[in-house]
Amino acid sequence: MQTMRTIEWRDGTLATLDQTKLPNENLILEMRECEEVAFAIKEMKMRGAPLIGVAAAYGLALTAYHSKAKTREDLIRQIEASAKILIETRPTAVNLFWAVERILRKARGTTGDAETVTRVVVNEAQRMADEDVEANLKIGEHGAELINDKDVILTHCNAGSLATVDHGTALGIVRTAWAQGKKIAVIATETRPKLQGARLTAYELKRDGIPVSLITDNMVGYVMSRRLINEVVVGADRIVRDAVINKIGTYSLAVLAHEHNIPFYVAAPKSTFDLVHTSKDAIIEKRNADEVTYIGSQRIAPMGVKVLNPAFDITPIKYVSGIICETGVLSKTKLEKLATASKHG
Amino acid sequence: MQTMRTIEWRDGTLATLDQTKLPNENLILEMRECEEVAFAIKEMKMRGAPLIGVAAAYGLALTAYHSKAKTREDLIRQIEASAKILIETRPTAVNLFWAVERILRKARGTTGDAETVTRVVVNEAQRMADEDVEANLKIGEHGAELINDKDVILTHCNAGSLATVDHGTALGIVRTAWAQGKKIAVIATETRPKLQGARLTAYELKRDGIPVSLITDNMVGYVMSRRLINEVVVGADRIVRDAVINKIGTYSLAVLAHEHNIPFYVAAPKSTFDLVHTSKDAIIEKRNADEVTYIGSQRIAPMGVKVLNPAFDITPIKYVSGIICETGVLSKTKLEKLATASKHG
Repeated sequence: MQTMRTIEWRDGTLATLDQTKLPNENLILEMRECEEVAFAIKEMKMRGAPLIGVAAAYGLALTAYHSKAKTREDLIRQIEASAKILIETRPTAVNLFWAVERILRKARGTTGDAETVTRVVVNEAQRMADEDVEANLKIGEHGAELINDKDVILTHCNAGSLATVDHGTALGIVRTAWAQGKKIAVIATETRPKLQGARLTAYELKRDGIPVSLITDNMVGYVMSRRLINEVVVGADRIVRDAVINKIGTYSLAVLAHEHNIPFYVAAPKSTFDLVHTSKDAIIEKRNADEVTYIGSQRIAPMGVKVLNPAFDITPIKYVSGIICETGVLSKTKLEKLATASKHG
Repeated sequence: MQTMRTIEWRDGTLATLDQTKLPNENLILEMRECEEVAFAIKEMKMRGAPLIGVAAAYGLALTAYHSKAKTREDLIRQIEASAKILIETRPTAVNLFWAVERILRKARGTTGDAETVTRVVVNEAQRMADEDVEANLKIGEHGAELINDKDVILTHCNAGSLATVDHGTALGIVRTAWAQGKKIAVIATETRPKLQGARLTAYELKRDGIPVSLITDNMVGYVMSRRLINEVVVGADRIVRDAVINKIGTYSLAVLAHEHNIPFYVAAPKSTFDLVHTSKDAIIEKRNADEVTYIGSQRIAPMGVKVLNPAFDITPIKYVSGIICETGVLSKTKLEKLATASKHG
């Protein structure tokens, strides 16, 4: 595990690594205002569904901590204003909305003065960060049971410690299996357009000494047809009743895994579940064309070319072999039952 | 059609666009020695199976044209030495071997002095260039019959005029359908690691006014699941008895098209067919790790990370809806018959 959490509360300052600078530069961002947190989420300086959930909670904690509000009501109004800014940053990962709701509910449910509300909000954000680490450690344990000695695991994007407070979801499973002494290796897709696989997954696995090889996204079929991998493990941005919504490319991986009879696992904490909705309700964020036509400052396509840039795609549950969360491994059948219960609940 | 052929013989000089510089710079390479041609093929300044076939033929023509050999025998030995250099540049595209063989056979079969052999070799290279254009125009006609008005065609890599002497194979079909007045559009995958889709396909279609949108390779599943395309049309580097060998990523596209019931067509001239072999005989070129870890001068992955970089993959015939060549559209059944005939022939 890394020595610093991906996000840390330091007496009214929020510290994180600027993930857009990795792996070439380790730049620590220090934020004191919720607007800075919102900007960092929008610009993907912080990314990963669990991380942006906790970051949003801490963003509201910053608002409370630095507020000059004299009354409980004024403070709650300020927190609500910050919440509004945060939930407009990115539409797909449900953790963001879950975290903001949880802090708002806690603040509104607290009696006492502004100082008391502030203390409660900061403590709740801290608790959410701790819970994320605990959830990932449990996901790691449950998931590692599915990983055999000498397995090679294909992963996409970055569902690692950098996508969470610590340990990671998909890579948390890898870390736990590795810590158990299993001689595993990872193949990471580079994950265009933002290259989280090349920049972040390869970086954090190399740092921890876990064998990792990098491929371009279009090598997945090749790697599967040659049986170079034993299973696919990815994270999730939102798990709805009928599908897993995750980084663009996940759906292609799932179809290819299905065709090759390779298990396809999704690792995510319960905060990523949104079982009151189905995939047709989900908003798939469309990001800027420049993410595709430039890599850094380098233009790689003719000027004026049209671009599609959906940031996520939708993988129907039928392609998912299991969802690994903090309470265990949900099979397709279990997930369907949970979804039905939530529908009627 | 472009005003200049992708490769042109100009009285003992061979002119081509340096494709590694596109789309940012139009740099014309002028080559007078076969070694320069071999280098340009190896470095992918010229690429595309049909183009490197014709380029190799012209490379041998350069050797003959500038030779100081006094005898037919000396000249043929020099041509053979050049042939050896050419066939070591890239192992997968069969057109290279086919073209070198054809020139060698022609030279060896010519009686008369060195000057006569030179004239025959240069003429044969010219004829091969002309035949490539004719084949592409015919592929365009046959293929365009499969394209409906308002279709959107997904293509991979660059099987365009830049991959051939002119017109293109997959993009030749697009050009012919467009010239017939069909209001079609193209979605081009960027095609990592070398970005031929972003740099070359988007470039040549935009230049010709044909609507084109760019996607990253991992968006293919998304685009198919939303029915944003009507068919896939790609080129080929080698068509063996049981499979199509083409740019890495083609196999993933074919499996995804199959899963979505979207026709998957391969467009290639007969010079790309190698029906005496099967996929297990094929050599898949592995290229340098730097192609994956750098984009231009920009490093995008941690130093020392392991990389897989197969340049091609193998698509079994069962995923191919039809192969469009200069004599028509070969169905799976027809291809299998052709393969059997060739096996016994």
